[in-house]
Amino acid sequence: MPKKIRVAVNGYGVIGKRVADAVRVQQDMELVGVSDVISDYRIKTAVTLGISVYASTTEGSAQMDAAGLPVAGGLHQLLDKVDVVVDCTPAKIGAGNLERYREHGVKAIFQGGEKHELTGHSFVAHANYATALGRETTRVVSCNTTATVRTLTALKDAGLLAKARGVLIRRATDPWESDHSGIMNTIVPEGRIPSHQGPDAQSVDSSLDVVTMAAKGSHTQNHMHYWTVELSRTADREEVLDALRAESRIALVRRADGIVALNSTIELMRDLGRPRGDMYEVALWEDILTVQGNELFYTYTVDNQAVVIPENIDAIRALAGTVTNAAESIRRTNDALGVRQDFTTVPENTRTGSVGT
Amino acid sequence: MPKKIRVAVNGYGVIGKRVADAVRVQQDMELVGVSDVISDYRIKTAVTLGISVYASTTEGSAQMDAAGLPVAGGLHQLLDKVDVVVDCTPAKIGAGNLERYREHGVKAIFQGGEKHELTGHSFVAHANYATALGRETTRVVSCNTTATVRTLTALKDAGLLAKARGVLIRRATDPWESDHSGIMNTIVPEGRIPSHQGPDAQSVDSSLDVVTMAAKGSHTQNHMHYWTVELSRTADREEVLDALRAESRIALVRRADGIVALNSTIELMRDLGRPRGDMYEVALWEDILTVQGNELFYTYTVDNQAVVIPENIDAIRALAGTVTNAAESIRRTNDALGVRQDFTTVPENTRTGSVGT
Amino acid sequence: MPKKIRVAVNGYGVIGKRVADAVRVQQDMELVGVSDVISDYRIKTAVTLGISVYASTTEGSAQMDAAGLPVAGGLHQLLDKVDVVVDCTPAKIGAGNLERYREHGVKAIFQGGEKHELTGHSFVAHANYATALGRETTRVVSCNTTATVRTLTALKDAGLLAKARGVLIRRATDPWESDHSGIMNTIVPEGRIPSHQGPDAQSVDSSLDVVTMAAKGSHTQNHMHYWTVELSRTADREEVLDALRAESRIALVRRADGIVALNSTIELMRDLGRPRGDMYEVALWEDILTVQGNELFYTYTVDNQAVVIPENIDAIRALAGTVTNAAESIRRTNDALGVRQDFTTVPENTRTGSVGT
Amino acid sequence: MPKKIRVAVNGYGVIGKRVADAVRVQQDMELVGVSDVISDYRIKTAVTLGISVYASTTEGSAQMDAAGLPVAGGLHQLLDKVDVVVDCTPAKIGAGNLERYREHGVKAIFQGGEKHELTGHSFVAHANYATALGRETTRVVSCNTTATVRTLTALKDAGLLAKARGVLIRRATDPWESDHSGIMNTIVPEGRIPSHQGPDAQSVDSSLDVVTMAAKGSHTQNHMHYWTVELSRTADREEVLDALRAESRIALVRRADGIVALNSTIELMRDLGRPRGDMYEVALWEDILTVQGNELFYTYTVDNQAVVIPENIDAIRALAGTVTNAAESIRRTNDALGVRQDFTTVPENTRTGSVGT
Repeated sequence: MPKKIRVAVNGYGVIGKRVADAVRVQQDMELVGVSDVISDYRIKTAVTLGISVYASTTEGSAQMDAAGLPVAGGLHQLLDKVDVVVDCTPAKIGAGNLERYREHGVKAIFQGGEKHELTGHSFVAHANYATALGRETTRVVSCNTTATVRTLTALKDAGLLAKARGVLIRRATDPWESDHSGIMNTIVPEGRIPSHQGPDAQSVDSSLDVVTMAAKGSHTQNHMHYWTVELSRTADREEVLDALRAESRIALVRRADGIVALNSTIELMRDLGRPRGDMYEVALWEDILTVQGNELFYTYTVDNQAVVIPENIDAIRALAGTVTNAAESIRRTNDALGVRQDFTTVPENTRTGSVGT
Repeated sequence: MPKKIRVAVNGYGVIGKRVADAVRVQQDMELVGVSDVISDYRIKTAVTLGISVYASTTEGSAQMDAAGLPVAGGLHQLLDKVDVVVDCTPAKIGAGNLERYREHGVKAIFQGGEKHELTGHSFVAHANYATALGRETTRVVSCNTTATVRTLTALKDAGLLAKARGVLIRRATDPWESDHSGIMNTIVPEGRIPSHQGPDAQSVDSSLDVVTMAAKGSHTQNHMHYWTVELSRTADREEVLDALRAESRIALVRRADGIVALNSTIELMRDLGRPRGDMYEVALWEDILTVQGNELFYTYTVDNQAVVIPENIDAIRALAGTVTNAAESIRRTNDALGVRQDFTTVPENTRTGSVGT
Repeated sequence: MPKKIRVAVNGYGVIGKRVADAVRVQQDMELVGVSDVISDYRIKTAVTLGISVYASTTEGSAQMDAAGLPVAGGLHQLLDKVDVVVDCTPAKIGAGNLERYREHGVKAIFQGGEKHELTGHSFVAHANYATALGRETTRVVSCNTTATVRTLTALKDAGLLAKARGVLIRRATDPWESDHSGIMNTIVPEGRIPSHQGPDAQSVDSSLDVVTMAAKGSHTQNHMHYWTVELSRTADREEVLDALRAESRIALVRRADGIVALNSTIELMRDLGRPRGDMYEVALWEDILTVQGNELFYTYTVDNQAVVIPENIDAIRALAGTVTNAAESIRRTNDALGVRQDFTTVPENTRTGSVGT
Repeated sequence: MPKKIRVAVNGYGVIGKRVADAVRVQQDMELVGVSDVISDYRIKTAVTLGISVYASTTEGSAQMDAAGLPVAGGLHQLLDKVDVVVDCTPAKIGAGNLERYREHGVKAIFQGGEKHELTGHSFVAHANYATALGRETTRVVSCNTTATVRTLTALKDAGLLAKARGVLIRRATDPWESDHSGIMNTIVPEGRIPSHQGPDAQSVDSSLDVVTMAAKGSHTQNHMHYWTVELSRTADREEVLDALRAESRIALVRRADGIVALNSTIELMRDLGRPRGDMYEVALWEDILTVQGNELFYTYTVDNQAVVIPENIDAIRALAGTVTNAAESIRRTNDALGVRQDFTTVPENTRTGSVGT
């Protein structure tokens, strides 16, 4: 049996705690520990879940001690024990950590809050797993960009994509935030067109002809994207749907199934027993998608907290170099996380007898 | 001095009360009365404002009496006294009233909740005032469609418009609604693409190549539109802005002036002393608008409660036939309502001395 | 080994699906099946989870067939196979089902949407498990009332309660609802004082001197209660906290732990891996609770979707009569559901080594 | 004719702009100018309205110049021209301005964001106008405290008040705020009981036995208060209502009139043509108010942006010493602002004929 990839997560926030969860369910990975500076309920929960907690700073360590938290050591000690670190610290903080990771000879994955230039490589598994193989660093692009690249490269792979123009209505803040971060009863447009997501998608695949416009909406979870796509040729609806089905992290949903809004998918994930109610897939409305000649129109929703989690897992394997085939890594990740392409199709072998515990 | 156009408003709701206000400040119109079936604070306020109130039904009349409201008569009595009725009853109700209006020989204006087929004519002042002249009926299109037609015909008039693809994020319900009408912490997409606003814009100007996609956002006031426009030729930013400035009911706003979101414009209208805080103009962000080659991208916000009010006033003149020139009617309406093309340019002759009452 | 209690759930909505989940993890119960009339994602998920689905109506059965759902039979067939049915149909619908349950000789539990008179017994485990023993029917009171009774009877048990006056800020609609049920940017007061929860608490314990005032707030999950309690005597803070700690379904939370708002507890439950992010406990702020002489002031939050679930489980045992001791049933339920009295105290035997899968 | 009181407003924000408006409609006052540091749409509107604008800082002056704003001078020049300054700068900033005002020999009114100690006097017109007469400074208490004092002193004046316990659900941020200030889909309790409003009410009237608990709700306008009052004796409903009617700035509203929520009153104010849609009155629900023996329960809503405006106007007269009688000042203020005790009673002499412009 091959050695497991030893992984650290630096920053146990919205993304970090999910990456930690996801690492723990991979057969070929081991979560050595997480590191942070906080000492409140968020990190206490990590301890309750049996995760080793390290302190990123001396001050953080002292506060953890004071809060009764068992501190396993400092970040540098954690880095001594791992092959790959996933940096999930707040935007712009990660850049300062890179040198530290290098000193410890640890490969590092950053998130979309950092600039492409930090790593020179931006990652979406289906698009460019191969070019990340064995690299020292990569950057998993943001939730909006991840969804954009997944869908557009699916169309591109089928030879259907000419150009894409998108409107992104983002959630305003994360569900756990309690103060001084939200917007109320308004929409706030981004100050410039194109918004940053279009160029960001091109940092993954420079061939994409994509322009995005973005605004924040008055809700706390899930983004919604609307796309106007010029196809490279006239196509029919089924051809387009088949192209999308070829990307395993896009799930087709239907209003006919009662999935009629962003919050329907959130409820659905909870119903399915997903940890934290997370949706790793882009949920694209099959019965809203429309083709008119060589124009394609569609809308989907993205769980901004979860959509990048499978990409982080694949990025770990890519940097570690243990799995050289993208499809194989994606398959392992999807299986471990229970990624699906359809949420409501009833399984063939449905039990119809009475059920107990 | 020419005789004033005698006007009735049937339905004193969100639109009706604003039409009534607007009619009262026109020099060439007289508000004879309003008619409704309610007897609560909304209609009591009409009485307080000195408006004659009529009852649309016998039951409504009895309830008004019981509530201590002075009822001036029944709707049919009101219709006997007017030249034009503006029907602002709830969507789909108006259709049933048409026959009644005809019996009284009264010209009638309907709102966008009714179908185009009801009147055979759909109205936006700048686009087709002339074809409404002397007609028996017309229909002022909905708030979203009015804004769409204003902006697209401005581009068309300048010879710039090839085709337009829009995403419309609508307010979910009106600010006064208290129960069982809102959405919470979500976005609800319309069930089909194109949404109805595109075809509706074509009911005003069939030459428009326009497709719309729409969703409801979790806020109560103002819509937000994002447009991707293919220009008929390469143009520069100033050329586009000049085209938009040629439509007197588009106001250019700027983030540099602190107008950074939908609620900024709402606060601004209150600050300017607008009645009910209404914005009759489409507020389009000058410093977000972007041109790339022959592609134009822009966003604006629309006061869903107020944007159709000037159109209703113009429609009254068009049906009455008292003003044959569109520009003249538009000028009168704009002057009476204080319509502006720029909200923040400080007037030339600003007083700088101390001010009293 | 004693025979398991065979349970049916009629109505697979917000409460029903959670009751079904909870029954499945009890060692002494068996979920025979659930019954409903819907055929969309909500019931499809039940099938995916391996639950036998029955149709409550002929029409519902036909629609389930059409949607490709394997229907195990009609509700009457389900009733033939069970000892207890938990009725989780919408408010006021349950009353009509009682006769049907009786015909099948099945004991029945109703929810707080039904009137006390339907069953003649209203249930909160700690307050009156004993009086429900062996009964044909009982009614688990609503989420707000359950929380009220849990906290007030804890004070009463300690001899501390004289009278209690509460203000209840309710969530406006359930998180999954997408349209025409929410309120937006407002608060809606109940039309009368006292609101129904006070009298409802007295239907469980008629000795409680309690008055409630209630309003709906502009949020979708969790209620918040503020209480002003007159103590029967002067007491100190620790005495009051001890009284509350004696009720196993009250958890003390602290702002000092970062739990500063309703949504903090929601995030915490997700972090703890709770199914659907559910909180079965009343989360009462220890560091806000204040005693002044013989007056006590405190606030807590209630997960309106989950707080009644443990009560339903206890009610099943009480009606079935298999466990005669309240404390024993409560212990079993709490253990199976992972109910805690403190969410953030780090376990004694915390692992500090590295962890894998 | 007596000389008008010359007034300056320092800080043209939510409160300042309303005070400026209100000063301008008083017959015995003159608004000499307003001072601020901003240069965006908010202050540009002041210029448009014909108000002289001064710069509070050299930097602010430069930015106003750059923005094309005609600057009438610096704050110190404004202070040279006035008798009274109303300080409406952000909380805690005002304290630093006091010395400056003293140097210019200008009397000064501060807002509730400052501490009582700054002025040694806290003001609510009906409660303690007399003690403010001729003072150098006073402090108009916050919106929540103003409403609390108005209602409780009305009960006290009638000899009915023993003690009062209140729960205050506050709006989370002001409607104009666009970012990083709101809360979303939650309630945030204040960290301590009693919240500061109770002691603050006692800074106006130390005899009040009042305790408050407060939380922020997910809405942007109007607070809602729920009160449990122990009366000094058994009373009936009408006696209590009469006591409240004796305070001219409490308006009784009714659900029977369709006023069923916070946003109903906001719509009502817009319908009544109030500037900015402001409500100066505490709107107390007559048909929810309940008396049980010696206990009184009621709820009201407070326009957090406007309720303190009439108090500021009265405070100007009190400091200036031009009107020694509280009732006379209150009458003048109320008349000028159109304060009402009932919003929906139809006027006696209602016109029933047709109305024109």
